[in-house]
Order: sequence, then C-alpha cells, then structure tokens
Amino acid sequence: MPEIRQNPATKAWVIIATERASRPEEFGAIAEEEEEKIQLDQCPFCTGNEKMTPGEIFAFRTYGTKPDTPGWWVRIIPNKYPALVHDGDVHRGRIEEFFRHMDGVGEHEVIIESPDHNKTIATMDQKQVEEIFFAYRERYRALSNNPKHELIILFKNHKKEAGTSIVHPHSQIVATPVTPMHIRHRIEEAMRYFDDNGECVYCMMINKELQAAERVILETDNFIVFVPFAATSPFETWLLPKKHGSSLEEITAVLTKELAFVMRNTLMKIHKGLNDPAYNFVVMSSPCHEKNVEYYHWQIQIIPRVARVAGFELGSGIYINTVIPEHAAKYLKDVII
Amino acid sequence: MPEIRQNPATKAWVIIATERASRPEEFGAIAEEEEEKIQLDQCPFCTGNEKMTPGEIFAFRTYGTKPDTPGWWVRIIPNKYPALVHDGDVHRGRIEEFFRHMDGVGEHEVIIESPDHNKTIATMDQKQVEEIFFAYRERYRALSNNPKHELIILFKNHKKEAGTSIVHPHSQIVATPVTPMHIRHRIEEAMRYFDDNGECVYCMMINKELQAAERVILETDNFIVFVPFAATSPFETWLLPKKHGSSLEEITAVLTKELAFVMRNTLMKIHKGLNDPAYNFVVMSSPCHEKNVEYYHWQIQIIPRVARVAGFELGSGIYINTVIPEHAAKYLKDVII
Repeated sequence: MPEIRQNPATKAWVIIATERASRPEEFGAIAEEEEEKIQLDQCPFCTGNEKMTPGEIFAFRTYGTKPDTPGWWVRIIPNKYPALVHDGDVHRGRIEEFFRHMDGVGEHEVIIESPDHNKTIATMDQKQVEEIFFAYRERYRALSNNPKHELIILFKNHKKEAGTSIVHPHSQIVATPVTPMHIRHRIEEAMRYFDDNGECVYCMMINKELQAAERVILETDNFIVFVPFAATSPFETWLLPKKHGSSLEEITAVLTKELAFVMRNTLMKIHKGLNDPAYNFVVMSSPCHEKNVEYYHWQIQIIPRVARVAGFELGSGIYINTVIPEHAAKYLKDVII
Repeated sequence: MPEIRQNPATKAWVIIATERASRPEEFGAIAEEEEEKIQLDQCPFCTGNEKMTPGEIFAFRTYGTKPDTPGWWVRIIPNKYPALVHDGDVHRGRIEEFFRHMDGVGEHEVIIESPDHNKTIATMDQKQVEEIFFAYRERYRALSNNPKHELIILFKNHKKEAGTSIVHPHSQIVATPVTPMHIRHRIEEAMRYFDDNGECVYCMMINKELQAAERVILETDNFIVFVPFAATSPFETWLLPKKHGSSLEEITAVLTKELAFVMRNTLMKIHKGLNDPAYNFVVMSSPCHEKNVEYYHWQIQIIPRVARVAGFELGSGIYINTVIPEHAAKYLKDVII
C-alpha cells in the first residue's frame, strides 16, 4: 500500500508509491527514455483490449453493451499503478512523535478519453470533448462526496515531457485524504483578499483581465481564457468561469458543453500555434469539505511544458518566464483554428 | 530590463526576462533540443576565452595575473543573460491598483568552478572543491550585505534535464529584491515550530535522523547528509550543518573545507551510484534581513532529476516518490567511492 508522509519542517505531504520504481542503476538513463512505440493490439486503452485493464468504474457506452467490452466512447478505470488506494485508514499517525505519516488511502482513476488511439482533445470533434467533460463532472461529484476525501485533482499529462509514456488519450483523477499546503496557501491568500475586499480575488482578476484586454485569448458568455499577468512559464493559460463557483462539480449541463467548447478551442490554439507541445492541464476546485465557498474560484490551468525548471526555481519558488504574458496571449489569440 | 510581477491571487513572484526567449514556433521542439556540442576554443568559460564573457567580479588566480586573463582557478562573472540586473528601482508599483510589479533589480552571477571544461565537483580534487566553496561564501557575504537584496539563492544545474545547456562546470548565484512565498511559508512553519517547542525544527530533524539512522548517507563532525523522511523525489538529499546556523555566510574557513569534503563525497556517490544523473543543488539560507535567526537552519538540497513532474504535482503540490527514502539512503550510503 502506498504511504503518505509529511515533512516535519515544511509540512509538505509526499506520496511514497513504489509500484513503478526503476532500479537505481537505471535512473541516470531518464534522458534516453523513449516514448512508447506500442502496437495498437497491445494498447490497454484501445477498444477490444478492455480485459487488459482493471474493471471499469464508469463508461459512456452503446445501450446494451456490457462493461469491459467494446461499445464505449469514454471509459473510466482504476489506475493499474495507483498513487493512492481505496482501502486503508485515514488516521494520521506518527513515528517517534516527530514524523507524521498515514496510509496512502484515496482513489486514482484513469479517464480514457476516446477509443481512438491517435486523437487528442485538440483533434477530437466537439461532441466527444463534451462527453469527456460530462465524465469529468460525474467522477468529480462522486469522489468529492466521499467523506474520506479532502481534495480532488483532475489532470492530464500530454506527451513524455509532461509525464506520460502512454500515447492513447487519457486523463486522471486523484482523490487525496489530505489538503496539501500548496492548496492551503492559495486558499489562505484568497480568504485574506475576501476578508479585505468582500469579493473573490479571482472574480476581480477576471474583471481586470477583461478591462485590460491584452492577455485574453478567448471569451464566451460564461468563460474567459487568459495568460495570467504573472504567468510562471511561457504560454501558461488559465480558464475560469465568469460566474463565481468554487468547484467544477457545481456546473450545469449547458455550461459543461460550453466548457468543452472553450477547452477544445484553447487546446487547438496551443496544438497549432506551438507545434503540438507537451502540456499538462489541471482542474483546481476547492477542497471537498469547503463546498460552495465565496472566497475560492474553480479554474483550469494549462501549462505547455516548453521550459525547464532549474535550481533557481526549485530553491526560490520564483519562476523565470522568458515570454512576456501579453505577447504569449496575443500569439495564441491570433492562431486561427 | 527584466520585470518582476506578482500574481494577485497566489502572491507568487515571477521574473519576466525575455533575453533568451525562443520564437513561439520553436517551443514544441524542446524535446529535440541537444546538449551543447561545443569546440573548446569556443567555450566562453574556458581559459583563454575570458574576453568572451562580461568582466570578472571576483577570481582566485595566480599572483600577478590580470583580471580577465588566464591564471585563475575559480572565476565569477555577471551572467550574460541575467534574470535580474543591478540598476533599477526596488519600489513595488501597481498597475490599476491590482497587479503588483517592480523592476527586475538584483544580481545574477556565474561561478566558473574550474578552468577544466570536463570536470564536475564529483570528479575534481578536494582542494579545487574547497576553493569553489570559499568563492561561494565570499559572494554570499558580499551580496547579502547589500540592503537592496532580500534573498540569495546559490544553485547548480548539472546537465540538460536539470536546466543547463553549458557543459563547462559552473554554478550561479542570484540576489532577489523580494522574499518569495515559497521561502516565507517555510520560515513561517519553522517559526511556528520554534514558538511551540523552543527549538529549531531542523535541529530536531537532525537529532531524529541520527537516532533513526536509516536515512543517513554520511556524517562528519559538523555535517549530516540524509534522504529526508518525506523526500519529494527519488534520491533527494539534504545536507545540513549539525550546529545551528541560519546562513551559509556564517561558516568558518575550517567548516568551509569540511563542507567541501562532504559535498564532494555526496556528489561522488550520486555520480557513481546513479550513473552521472542530471541534478540540481541549491543552498538555502535565511533571507538577508533575517540574519542569525534561531528558527531557521541553512541547508543544501540536492535533487537528482530522475523523475518527471506531471499534472498531479503541478496541481496539488503533492509529490509522488517511487523510491522509499530508506532504500534510497541505503543505496547511496553503500556506494563505495
């Protein structure tokens, strides 16, 4: 079972999950690691290979077809090498009264976004992307209502440099039994702003970005996509709902479709404008036990992995961005899709 | 001039420095980027090529030789593409009362660690490593006594995956005009521990690590090297002075030599045991205006870049480590050098 440990000095939580470990002698070789060149008949995420994965949790599939058989268009399965597992105790123990740790309890699911091995959200049709976002909302709701869970993180790793070796389009959802300091600190700052000003700092940011208009990439009735004023890396992109809401799970079906439209268009611009770069995106919502709060605003952050983090960033937490956010935004805004 | 911006929601500072920017069309290509294959006569850090760099700030050199000529064994120069520059105003301004920003003022220096193009600290002799650490201490002291500076970050990027494209052994030192939240949060936690317990949490950690003895890689009279209980990545290694001190600049000449010995031995173990991996190390001291504080403890963190950060880590701040810290420590401890 994975273990969760806390650094007593920094209070940062770490998951120790050894299932996928390499041998130490192999670690120097990460540079030479190759992207998977798999035969389609061996891809566990392809239609026809459903038996190669753990049994499905949820799927959108043709009426009458059986679980773990073909006929699906979005399929959700447990991660075969989970960072967190659902059996275990959420009690936080200590070793020698100093080192805090607990069982690695939670959930770790994979959302297979399409039966088609070679698509990505940027190249799928609108309808398929909507289905993916309906699946996201469904699992977000289910996992966030389990009282064991503190935080739900939904994310996608696209390409090797963004941390995946599997080409078949997929995203992941993890439910953690702790709220990490990273999120606590964001919430604290947002609360402080709310206490000072009586409004959500992200709502204010949306207003200011719309006024300034120089970092906005696209805008619809209900969503805004922009490069933040202090973007940490080139082409970092934030997507926020204009109307205040603290979690993805709150959005309506109509908004889910609009969200899919906005994400697809944004990822198409990144795909075309930056030559299909590696990227991560992550959906950030308030913690599970802080639903519908007025001080926090759910958002999607998209981080094209076009820059490397080095010693300065690791030590200081200050990022060096080599592209002026206004230039990055204008560049992506002008990409015709 | 570089610009420093703050995200109004997270309060994170970012440096916008565009000198080294690629064109957007080139960003997808980071994967194919090659490590520098330079002719020695074109390496700006090699002896004989001193005129290819900005004029030196400091050097250890043979008596009678002139600045910016051969004869040196450690040489410190301004970074040709600085993240921060020394002219400018440390005043923090605002755009529209919401977006805080300031001039990118500070210092950014390169420490050329040896005239020999192909050495690294792990393969240099002890005497040379001592000289590097004397140079570190010298520049740390000089930069931290400038009242414009809030934080000094000294770091090394070894190999392409760790963020450098220059093979010639070098490290960097940056003086920033802000204390980033990343460091503030660490200090806050350390202060809280001190207020509760009347002692430094890092001093306590050293005691506990020595007692447990299962994560210690090496130990001398005055230093301890261990894999932290909650290491964030495989083989992450911390080096701390056993006697409390909050900044590298406080250490004596005798301790500087012992530190060089300990760092060299640690990096030799990493070099040999992990097949010369890419790594970063970073020297973390208290901010410049919080000297000699009882709650913070200076340290060196060494991070072999043998794992990739993906969407989960970016979104949650929780790291997944695939090697049990006790196993990593035992492995490195057992490497014979």
